[in-house]
Amino acid sequence: MKLYYAPGSCARASHIALREAGAEFDLALVDFTRAEQRSEAYRAINPKGRVPALETDRGLLTETPAILAWIAQSYPDAGLAPLNDPFQFARLQSFNAYLCSTVHVAHAHSRRGERWADDQAAIDEMKRKAPEVMDSCFRLMETDMVTGPWVMGEAYSVADPYLFTITQWLPAHGLTSTSYPTIHALVQRMLERPAVQDAISAEAG
Amino acid sequence: MKLYYAPGSCARASHIALREAGAEFDLALVDFTRAEQRSEAYRAINPKGRVPALETDRGLLTETPAILAWIAQSYPDAGLAPLNDPFQFARLQSFNAYLCSTVHVAHAHSRRGERWADDQAAIDEMKRKAPEVMDSCFRLMETDMVTGPWVMGEAYSVADPYLFTITQWLPAHGLTSTSYPTIHALVQRMLERPAVQDAISAEAG
Repeated sequence: MKLYYAPGSCARASHIALREAGAEFDLALVDFTRAEQRSEAYRAINPKGRVPALETDRGLLTETPAILAWIAQSYPDAGLAPLNDPFQFARLQSFNAYLCSTVHVAHAHSRRGERWADDQAAIDEMKRKAPEVMDSCFRLMETDMVTGPWVMGEAYSVADPYLFTITQWLPAHGLTSTSYPTIHALVQRMLERPAVQDAISAEAG
Repeated sequence: MKLYYAPGSCARASHIALREAGAEFDLALVDFTRAEQRSEAYRAINPKGRVPALETDRGLLTETPAILAWIAQSYPDAGLAPLNDPFQFARLQSFNAYLCSTVHVAHAHSRRGERWADDQAAIDEMKRKAPEVMDSCFRLMETDMVTGPWVMGEAYSVADPYLFTITQWLPAHGLTSTSYPTIHALVQRMLERPAVQDAISAEAG
């Protein structure tokens, strides 16, 4: 298996989950500083021109929530999702869907505004508002979604690396996880896990 | 069960899937023309202030990809997802994640720009560019993701109602599904299904 990633990107969620699962895989750097994700060579692998992309023996998988659920289902002994309870599995998936469709998207408006506007003033306006939108997402998660110690409660799951990864983007918005105590405590617990330490260290090269 | 919906919104995907599954459920209209989704009464049910939300006997579920997978897992006899093949299930989930995080988001920039900008000129600029972004999403799906007759190939799945629902938003962008022949043919096949006809008719009141 091979995980296409960029350091600190949302691919870190899949990266940590693979390590938690005990999977064997290689890392393949997609160098965003050289816009390699938009190169012809990478688009031949992943036409979306994004990371993560996970090359498996059956073919390529993209989109973080899909990769995370696949890791949990493919390595059931690692206990990374409530696989035998469709309702709890749906709660996990709902959380991951919120991260990908709302929180990651809020973040992207500060760095990738050109996806949705050509005019520089409009791009600047999105960038200006992004911290407010990120903060409102994190307040909703803190208040209504995350009870702790983990996203799903007592059980660690693939939602935790995903929330952890996105929480690490807060400083880019002038925000800090200490504003959201339950999430902040979760991040501190994440930093103690060998899989998380190894992933961060491997991405730092 | 009760599905909170607005007519023609992305809740239609869950609505169709529930009918395909043979589930028993009630529909609860959330009136967007009166901004009911942002009312205190609705936020007490779903703090996100969005649809769909599915009230089950275990509690509330939100986010279309999570609800769709839950329907497929809870009604396995309906055959709405490749439940016994984690790789194919991940392909299905990847498609649904792309719809929620990229295609729905592209659409939202034409109608809900205030989520990401306060300045009216910026909101107008997003609206102006939205058709171009929607078109590029649909070209990618047509070229690299949907082989037909259904999203997953020969097998109908919960991805089909979701793609169908979002395809129905193309005219709002001055676009037409006929520009994407494989997707257009899929939409025509969808329109022949009783579950789809019944859902559209029920939403029309």
